[in-house]
Amino acid sequence: MLNLRVICVGKLKEKFYKEACDEYVKRMKSLCQLEIIELKEESGDHKLEKEAEAIMSAIPPGSAVWALEIEGKLLSSEELAEKIAETTVMGASRIVLLIGSSEGLADKVKKTASFGLSMSRMTFPHHLARVMLLEQLYRAMMINEGRKYHK
Amino acid sequence: MLNLRVICVGKLKEKFYKEACDEYVKRMKSLCQLEIIELKEESGDHKLEKEAEAIMSAIPPGSAVWALEIEGKLLSSEELAEKIAETTVMGASRIVLLIGSSEGLADKVKKTASFGLSMSRMTFPHHLARVMLLEQLYRAMMINEGRKYHK
Repeated sequence: MLNLRVICVGKLKEKFYKEACDEYVKRMKSLCQLEIIELKEESGDHKLEKEAEAIMSAIPPGSAVWALEIEGKLLSSEELAEKIAETTVMGASRIVLLIGSSEGLADKVKKTASFGLSMSRMTFPHHLARVMLLEQLYRAMMINEGRKYHK
Repeated sequence: MLNLRVICVGKLKEKFYKEACDEYVKRMKSLCQLEIIELKEESGDHKLEKEAEAIMSAIPPGSAVWALEIEGKLLSSEELAEKIAETTVMGASRIVLLIGSSEGLADKVKKTASFGLSMSRMTFPHHLARVMLLEQLYRAMMINEGRKYHK
C-alpha cells in the first residue's frame, strides 16, 4: 500500500481548512497509508533554519522527498498520478511531501528534495495549499485505481 | 471602486468550502464591489449549453469577461493583480469571472471571454476552485493597495 507522509509547518488556524483536510484524509483511509506531520511554526531569527531542522528529522531514510515550491515543476493531475506510481515502482518505501510555513522552505530543505512540485504560479496561503495538495493526492489515487472522480 | 462579478455554476455542497468563500467575501467587503452569482447546475442532455445560456444572461454589457480554464494562461498573483489594475484603467466598468460546473464551460462561453485564466495545470473540484479564485482576488487587491498580506 502506498505510504505517504505530508510534513507541514504550522497548525491550521481556519476551522474550514481543517475540516477540508480532514475530509480528504478520511477519503484516503482505505487507499493509502497517509500520515500528516504538523511541525511548529517558528518565529524570529533563523525561523527557516529552525523549521528546516525539524523537517529533516521528520524524513525517514529511504523516502522519496518532494518539496512544494512555487517555482517548481508544474504537473497536471494525471502527471502527478503517474509520478506517484513510478516512484513507488522505483522502490521508494515512502513519498514525503513538504509544505513550508508562510515564509516557505529553507534552501537547504529544497536541496534535500529530489523533486520540486509546483501546484500553481500563484501564491496561496500555506493552509489552503495543504487542502489543495491533499485533494490532488486523493485525485491521483483515484486516477491510478481507475476510479471515477477525476474528469 | 473595483466592480467584480464571479459567476459560478452549482451550489457549494461542502460546508467548509462555503465558509472559506464567505471568509474571503467578508474580507473584500471594504475593498471592492463583489457579487457572486450562483447559477443552477444542469444535468442530462445539453447540460453545458443550458448552463452557457444562463451564464451569458448574467454578464452585464461593458464587462471584461475572464473565463477560468485549465488550459488558459498561468499568471502569478502579482501578474493577476496587475491585469486587474490594467483592465480597470482601460475603462471596463466591471470584471466578470466565470467558473464552470464539474464539466467546465461550453466552448461558446470560452469564446465570449476576452481572457482565459488558469490557476493551475492540475484539475481541482470547481468548489475548491471558487475558494482559490476568491483568495487570489483578495490577494490581488491587497497587492494593488500595497498592503501587507502577500509575500
